[in-house]
Amino acid sequence: MTWKAPLRDMQFVLQHWLRADQAWAQLPAYADVDLDLAAQVLEEAARFCEQVLAPLNSSGDRQGCQMEGGEVRTPDGFPAAYRAYVDGGWPSLACAPALGGQGLPLVLEAALQEMLFGSNHGWAMYTGIAHGAYLCLKAHASAELQARYLPGIVSGATLPTMCLTEPQAGSDLSLLRCRAVPLGDGGDGGYAVSGNKLFISGGEHDLTRDILHLVLARLPDAPPGNRGLSLLLVPKWLEDGQRNTLYCDGLEHKLGIRGSATCALRLEGARGWLIGQPHGGLAAMFVMMNSARLHVGLQGLGHAEAAWQQARDYALERRQMSAPGRAKGGAQGADPIHLHPAMRRVLLELRVRTEGMRALAYWTAQWLDIADAAVEPAQRAKAATLAALLTPIVKAAFTEQGFSLASKALQVLGGYGYTQEFAIEQTLRDSRIAMIYEGTNEIQANDLMLRKVLGDGGEGFALLLSELRTEAAADAGAAAAALGSACDTLEAALAKVLSMTAGDPEFPYRAAGDFLQLCATVLQAFAWARSARCIQALPVGAAQRREKQESVGFFLGYLLPDLDRQVAAIDAAATPLPFIAESF
Amino acid sequence: MTWKAPLRDMQFVLQHWLRADQAWAQLPAYADVDLDLAAQVLEEAARFCEQVLAPLNSSGDRQGCQMEGGEVRTPDGFPAAYRAYVDGGWPSLACAPALGGQGLPLVLEAALQEMLFGSNHGWAMYTGIAHGAYLCLKAHASAELQARYLPGIVSGATLPTMCLTEPQAGSDLSLLRCRAVPLGDGGDGGYAVSGNKLFISGGEHDLTRDILHLVLARLPDAPPGNRGLSLLLVPKWLEDGQRNTLYCDGLEHKLGIRGSATCALRLEGARGWLIGQPHGGLAAMFVMMNSARLHVGLQGLGHAEAAWQQARDYALERRQMSAPGRAKGGAQGADPIHLHPAMRRVLLELRVRTEGMRALAYWTAQWLDIADAAVEPAQRAKAATLAALLTPIVKAAFTEQGFSLASKALQVLGGYGYTQEFAIEQTLRDSRIAMIYEGTNEIQANDLMLRKVLGDGGEGFALLLSELRTEAAADAGAAAAALGSACDTLEAALAKVLSMTAGDPEFPYRAAGDFLQLCATVLQAFAWARSARCIQALPVGAAQRREKQESVGFFLGYLLPDLDRQVAAIDAAATPLPFIAESF
Repeated sequence: MTWKAPLRDMQFVLQHWLRADQAWAQLPAYADVDLDLAAQVLEEAARFCEQVLAPLNSSGDRQGCQMEGGEVRTPDGFPAAYRAYVDGGWPSLACAPALGGQGLPLVLEAALQEMLFGSNHGWAMYTGIAHGAYLCLKAHASAELQARYLPGIVSGATLPTMCLTEPQAGSDLSLLRCRAVPLGDGGDGGYAVSGNKLFISGGEHDLTRDILHLVLARLPDAPPGNRGLSLLLVPKWLEDGQRNTLYCDGLEHKLGIRGSATCALRLEGARGWLIGQPHGGLAAMFVMMNSARLHVGLQGLGHAEAAWQQARDYALERRQMSAPGRAKGGAQGADPIHLHPAMRRVLLELRVRTEGMRALAYWTAQWLDIADAAVEPAQRAKAATLAALLTPIVKAAFTEQGFSLASKALQVLGGYGYTQEFAIEQTLRDSRIAMIYEGTNEIQANDLMLRKVLGDGGEGFALLLSELRTEAAADAGAAAAALGSACDTLEAALAKVLSMTAGDPEFPYRAAGDFLQLCATVLQAFAWARSARCIQALPVGAAQRREKQESVGFFLGYLLPDLDRQVAAIDAAATPLPFIAESF
Repeated sequence: MTWKAPLRDMQFVLQHWLRADQAWAQLPAYADVDLDLAAQVLEEAARFCEQVLAPLNSSGDRQGCQMEGGEVRTPDGFPAAYRAYVDGGWPSLACAPALGGQGLPLVLEAALQEMLFGSNHGWAMYTGIAHGAYLCLKAHASAELQARYLPGIVSGATLPTMCLTEPQAGSDLSLLRCRAVPLGDGGDGGYAVSGNKLFISGGEHDLTRDILHLVLARLPDAPPGNRGLSLLLVPKWLEDGQRNTLYCDGLEHKLGIRGSATCALRLEGARGWLIGQPHGGLAAMFVMMNSARLHVGLQGLGHAEAAWQQARDYALERRQMSAPGRAKGGAQGADPIHLHPAMRRVLLELRVRTEGMRALAYWTAQWLDIADAAVEPAQRAKAATLAALLTPIVKAAFTEQGFSLASKALQVLGGYGYTQEFAIEQTLRDSRIAMIYEGTNEIQANDLMLRKVLGDGGEGFALLLSELRTEAAADAGAAAAALGSACDTLEAALAKVLSMTAGDPEFPYRAAGDFLQLCATVLQAFAWARSARCIQALPVGAAQRREKQESVGFFLGYLLPDLDRQVAAIDAAATPLPFIAESF
């Protein structure tokens, strides 16, 4: 696989779809950022991912990680690639200048993450949580802890992990048993943290000397359940040069992301420091988690892009049979398979879904930038609400598409796609985890429905709908009209959810998954309505303009009708679901 | 994974859904077969698959096949399992008594294949083509060839292969280059076959001494294209004890079915014998291929059943969070996850789709039995038409479901499902190949649309619709009514296809995939309408009766609306699809 950064479409989204330069001009923190600088950054990132990460994707998968005497050896080339990543300054891209960061907007960080995960998901697992940990420490850690640990995260000298899961506690953090006992007077001397953590990505590795574990645990006086969780920073190495007492007990053998060390960790009174308030761990952790969820959505986008490239490249080369209406397959006895209608259909679906997701993912990141940096508090609040609504949709819908599109791309490659000779089977395997971790897609759907939509009686959701309505009103074309009626559909579904929930508290749980997918379809309609409007800024007759126009048509004909299926499922949810009995 | 044969539902399909005893009573060849005998056969097969094959599923995947000096070593236990299979008489199940077979109907052979593939796909690849080869030789080989080779296939002393694919010729057999040159006078002394074959399942192994390769090749005077293909039988060992000159050059490293040796074969003037007429290879090969396509559909069913079992078993045990409406998750602080609405939803989908597919797969096999053994030629012809229509639908739609449902089941297992500690990730990997081989699902869709539906202007298809209409008229319930309107929808889609095709010859190619999926949905509606009617024969209040009733309700609410999506896509196909340009 020759992965190429999709710079052309990235630029289209930034320049035309997002009008990023106008947004930056209104945010004092990003007043110096312009499209030229953005283009430079993206081109540099593309070079790093194409030349350093992509060549290690297959080899990292085949070699995997090795454990010897508690130490983990990552695949050949991974540590050197990490040094190049640090030398390039990538860890600090979107960190505050006051902390040594470059102060660039999250929308560029999102583009960077798409490229990192798209070119080498296994490798990018090591760095994927770093920005979330940075945000978490910045928001919740004491000044002393920040001074001690933030510079290393910003520079890339250390890498953080997120230690949540335990064998009995996956989706349900209330079941966590890990304990933190105060040392000295009330925790002034830190805490002794003990317990077992599972599925810890980068829990041990050889990319950095120190590793900063962010561990959820319970203090001795903790109330039961989620409200009794505290977040602790537990470094691999103590400041006095002692090895902390936490150990990697083993690596998981996984379907994919085999270059990533997924560790079982054992903490035996390991010394740690509280981040934020006692029993306030969940709030602190969610700062990190929300960032991680957007990153996971970007993984879905990255996989979709990689899948599209592989399918397209193969379909342009491989010749089989004459396409209908062509005599004897041209000079070589058979046509390239991209000419066959069934292949055109799937290739268009790959391209259109991928480009739509890109616009929406960067849009979400832009709202995060506005939430963080807008002058007006009301603007910040609105942006935060929109980002909170969009995040679970991006996470769940994009990761499902990443996997589904990888499978469709594999089909284009036929029997070859099933072999390790081609990279698409790895894309398929790698992409599957993103539907599970950082909150399964079912958890995302419940988060959207119960917390984000119903939590304020639909008020925040009305903000999102209003954004979409504005786009629908901005143009007179078919895509805008379709978006308008898609908004009607979504609004009717929301009304149904609100009214049904009053009499049937289980209803929103039954409808959550389809409601999220419905939102994702309407958001795609929004993405393509805006694209249809934006391409008027492209030179008339340009190939990109024609391609986008064709994509709009394909979306309206083939993909938008997903709506009906999703509405039907929400209707079906009005009837209670039977229970599954044990075998009889 | 503790795989169990789904005997309860198999019996339901045979006894109530198919009324298999009544069908057998009308077919002289199967007059001695009754439900008791069928139950005995299925229980024996279940025992073999549960006790011999299922325990080798994971180990076979992990160990894979090894090649040393041109010889292939299958995973530990595979040869012994094959001896047990032969000792059990399974190769001869549905072979003619005159040839040493047991003369049992294909509907039982279908149930056997479902179990073989469901319990160990990798192993079952070695035996999967045997019955197709038996049918091919029986229909097309000379008496002398039959006498020499059929007994070994029937007894299981030898295993056949299907050697079609070459590196440049996958879906497009017209590009085959393999050559067969007559030896002696016009081929009386056989042919010398030369060329390279790719992706040959069981092309070399240690289960049997001899291997019978059925090879597509071109005679010197062959016309170009598909009409110039001849089928040759090329044994690994010649009758004089000489090793034939064909060699395994290597094994594929694949996403799944790693216990199956997928070989690159090199034929260097290997001696072979013509099966059927010169240049008549495609017709002969299709006897084998049609049988293989039904088998591949049964693989999809087997994977779906395995996925359902794994998801159900895990969901009944694993506890996470309180289900809505339940206080604090009962005594243990968390509920079993099968109580959560999102899990109930996916578990029901797994069960309902799987059971619907089983009824339809066995129904297809029953038509093959009628096509083979009915007294009336008209009845045979009708049954053959129905089986020909159903086969590509079963192959394509069921394999897509096998993979899709495996992914849904994996989701139920969460992070654990992504590890090799559980078998579901293997089910996912194994299931993916079935969408590709024996004609990709896109080829199936074209076969259905172009050859089977449009080939006779929709006449044969009317027979199928009439079968469905009869069921819709047989009951007054909701499922029958839904089937009736699903038939209206399908008939309207067919009319659209027929009229559009007249003016736009590419249209049926654009609509083929969705038309096949539409047929599959309507067939599921048929399956559940008949189930709704049949369960009246089950004891009132029986758990199985209640479960089937709940399944009918779930199907009508959640799955039947797939129709709308498929109709919308056929409508969208009215507009030409754009072409994919090279990157610009």
